[in-house]
Amino acid sequence: MKKTRKLAVNEASIVRSIARAARTGGSAAGKYGVELGIGDDAAIWRPKNGFAAVLTSDWFLEDTHFWKDWHPAEAVGWKCLMRAASDVAAMGGEPSCFVMGLALPANCAGAWLAGFLQGLHKASRKLKCTLAGGDTTRAAKILININVVGQVKRGTAVRRSGAQPGDRIFVSGKLGEAELGLRLAEQLRKEGGSPRSPLLNKHLYPEARVELGKWLAKDRLATAMMDISDGLSSDLTRMCEASQVGARIELARLPVAAGEYSKKFGQDKLARAALHGGDDYELLFCVANRDRERIPRSFHGLELTEIGRISKPRAIELIETSGKTFPLRPLGWDPF
Amino acid sequence: MKKTRKLAVNEASIVRSIARAARTGGSAAGKYGVELGIGDDAAIWRPKNGFAAVLTSDWFLEDTHFWKDWHPAEAVGWKCLMRAASDVAAMGGEPSCFVMGLALPANCAGAWLAGFLQGLHKASRKLKCTLAGGDTTRAAKILININVVGQVKRGTAVRRSGAQPGDRIFVSGKLGEAELGLRLAEQLRKEGGSPRSPLLNKHLYPEARVELGKWLAKDRLATAMMDISDGLSSDLTRMCEASQVGARIELARLPVAAGEYSKKFGQDKLARAALHGGDDYELLFCVANRDRERIPRSFHGLELTEIGRISKPRAIELIETSGKTFPLRPLGWDPF
Repeated sequence: MKKTRKLAVNEASIVRSIARAARTGGSAAGKYGVELGIGDDAAIWRPKNGFAAVLTSDWFLEDTHFWKDWHPAEAVGWKCLMRAASDVAAMGGEPSCFVMGLALPANCAGAWLAGFLQGLHKASRKLKCTLAGGDTTRAAKILININVVGQVKRGTAVRRSGAQPGDRIFVSGKLGEAELGLRLAEQLRKEGGSPRSPLLNKHLYPEARVELGKWLAKDRLATAMMDISDGLSSDLTRMCEASQVGARIELARLPVAAGEYSKKFGQDKLARAALHGGDDYELLFCVANRDRERIPRSFHGLELTEIGRISKPRAIELIETSGKTFPLRPLGWDPF
Repeated sequence: MKKTRKLAVNEASIVRSIARAARTGGSAAGKYGVELGIGDDAAIWRPKNGFAAVLTSDWFLEDTHFWKDWHPAEAVGWKCLMRAASDVAAMGGEPSCFVMGLALPANCAGAWLAGFLQGLHKASRKLKCTLAGGDTTRAAKILININVVGQVKRGTAVRRSGAQPGDRIFVSGKLGEAELGLRLAEQLRKEGGSPRSPLLNKHLYPEARVELGKWLAKDRLATAMMDISDGLSSDLTRMCEASQVGARIELARLPVAAGEYSKKFGQDKLARAALHGGDDYELLFCVANRDRERIPRSFHGLELTEIGRISKPRAIELIETSGKTFPLRPLGWDPF
């Protein structure tokens, strides 16, 4: 409700920067189903015939999800869109466009915004997901809310609730790399180090597993699916609650971080990061036992690993390498 | 990136409160086109056949848009949804569902959240616009980002860019009431007064003009339309820029606040609030000269007033009661 005015920066100039970077001012209307992009009261978008819209919402907040003084603005732009798109991938949908709420301190409207938009549009091109509209305002800290709008063929969306006893549980990629990257980031920031290590890749530049999700949905292979954003232990618990089942996971099968990560971190840290670390945006999915052979070891270069199976008793259990079984508690990320 | 845990409040408990209040946990799937609501990675929604989706984004932030210590939580809930829906009305669309990003301090997860949800769902029922999903996290201040998803019959959306020289300019309702209410709110808050005056109604409980917008779009009466959120002077300037035209507004015709407002505020304040005051969410629309007689004086009890006309020269001018003409500068709300 403040009415101070700074001539150098105003809402219109920021919207112009965004629209220019997005190249949606007219030219992109028609692209990915967007019939009207940035610049009016709202955007107009239409799913393909026979498709439904997939609606998501994802916060990305300074000091909660990134540090302005340490994370490259370009990585902030990339990650905020990729992690939002991951929710569409987790339904088996394809991202189409996104709407962005962006609140900035006035001193971030120059170089920081330019870097942010560069990363954002790199992710946008990679995902074939165009900026359709949004709202900008001023705030003391950087606030980002991304709404990726996707589409999925009617009746093929994969929910969390379809897992059945006997189903095999799979994950894509490695688990825990983002968590280990975050630990390194915390250390580097404290010591004044810059974000250069390849161990930070998964933390800074995660990828939404869109093609895998689409394939699993199209061939109706996955009985249940979600993305791992808060950590396997928490997200598997959610999937089992939604499906009213339990699960048994084998620790020895977990695709823990390897290579440089295992040189830097001990085996115990790798395992704990794989079990409880958030921010990986890999897909967690279940497949009926009769279909398990149809899941390849890798999909377009992305490793797919069977880690356990769904059980009827509603406990979530971890089988350790010794053969002993322990309850797996949801110790992943919770903002509260 | 903090991992503190409070057993009393966690993300799941907040999502449950929201879902319970929204009654979308399963039962509302199918309502207003929502095929899958709260509780999965994303929501699934489908526009009616022959309709396109209208996508919006709207911030509502503590200390920018409301004061937690003064505004009733229930009014915050009502207003954040109504003003977002107003962008759909301004395209001639109808709201269907919404996705909400909500970030809260942990101490707002009880009574404040309950009051907020009460107002939110009152607006939701009024708009026939259901909560489909969202994202919650913790923040030091209350952050709200609302994405109303609407639908509009293909090819009937009314843009800002269609105004033609000679078109008549109309507005709905009274202009400036919200601004005058805000002034009163500032005064009451300073003096320790509570939000009870009827002069606060428009500030606390604005209404999206959905039926009017739909009617104007359906009958293709409006050549251009937008909602007045930042003030007539700023919003008319935007419409004229988009349409590449100018406008002449007659001060004497402006539907300024009356009744109790005029008792409390002088004529000059009423006029200035009508010209530059934001937050009214009335519709500003243009009608071809040949169609002007088709616009009734009131639409379902909502006053419609012709305030001027579109001109070819690209200046925005105000004709004062003396007959003198002045340039009308965009002095409405700008967050920067």
